[in-house]
Amino acid sequence: MKVTVGISNRHVHVTKEHLETLFGKGYQLQILHPVNQPGQYASTEQVTIVTKKSKIEGVRVLGPTRSYTQVEISRTDAFKLGITPPVRDSGDVFESAPITIIGPCGKVELKEGCILANRHIHMTPEQQKEFGFIGISKVRIQIGGEKGGILDNVYIKVDPESYYEMHLDTDDANAFLLKNGDEVEIEEEEDYGK
Amino acid sequence: MKVTVGISNRHVHVTKEHLETLFGKGYQLQILHPVNQPGQYASTEQVTIVTKKSKIEGVRVLGPTRSYTQVEISRTDAFKLGITPPVRDSGDVFESAPITIIGPCGKVELKEGCILANRHIHMTPEQQKEFGFIGISKVRIQIGGEKGGILDNVYIKVDPESYYEMHLDTDDANAFLLKNGDEVEIEEEEDYGK
Repeated sequence: MKVTVGISNRHVHVTKEHLETLFGKGYQLQILHPVNQPGQYASTEQVTIVTKKSKIEGVRVLGPTRSYTQVEISRTDAFKLGITPPVRDSGDVFESAPITIIGPCGKVELKEGCILANRHIHMTPEQQKEFGFIGISKVRIQIGGEKGGILDNVYIKVDPESYYEMHLDTDDANAFLLKNGDEVEIEEEEDYGK
Repeated sequence: MKVTVGISNRHVHVTKEHLETLFGKGYQLQILHPVNQPGQYASTEQVTIVTKKSKIEGVRVLGPTRSYTQVEISRTDAFKLGITPPVRDSGDVFESAPITIIGPCGKVELKEGCILANRHIHMTPEQQKEFGFIGISKVRIQIGGEKGGILDNVYIKVDPESYYEMHLDTDDANAFLLKNGDEVEIEEEEDYGK
């Protein structure tokens, strides 16, 4: 069973309220280009993420707005910023790392909200059934090449509004020399003792 | 069989001649601190590495001088610099990526010399025998944890002047949430069809 790789660079999701704090009252995100997940897009808007130690400029805001504000970075970014965000499912920000987001009109100081996104594969309930993933919460991925190997703990995320694709952060992609659109092999295992 | 992780951040090895070009006639590297491999050290000296696209400042020079000049970076660095260095054994710089090194007294324009270092484990001939690695050129490494998995193509490097340790670049370390000094498990396999 194959799946296509989609690489997530550092990015930010924002609530409508925080969008207005960052970009101004009544502000609407502008679509730069759609991403593969239906209805989602990279916006033209960028912010700066700041910690006591350092900052990273030019961090893309993904749209549309969500019910939570969240900053997704790599561990490489985390070292630069001097923080230790946990590995989490998107939206699971409870007791994640604090971080400040700065936009042209204001700043949002998050007491929690910065995570390393877990490795995951998006699929619809129909694909889950068709591809044999019913009852399987996570899988291992086999990657070939000079810096190949296996990625454990790749979570299956089922949602009716999905495009079948595996999301990895830039650390995973760069460690394994993966590019957007590469096809890799899923080893299906329901429980392998991790 | 366990091995300890040593993480290699981007660094530069230089010939005596290039050291003098970068830092001045008769210059000697100053020891900042020894590293685990016998006789090797991080020097106090830092350089800037430059490509047409970008540059990275504060890149550490490792001493002592060698018979070749080589820049070892991560793929994350390579994207920033806009180059595609091959995965290589240290010293194997033939047709590797071009890069320029700038020091306080001059610059060295390398037509080849920038690589991504391969994953490798240092050991002495005695350890190779004692630990059962005779005839084994590379192994796989099992890593646990939330972003665990397996690293393939970890080369065995045998030299009488060795400290038993696995060297990974920052991409591999960050993808797997590894820290310096972590202990990981070797799966010994002589030939696994990669």
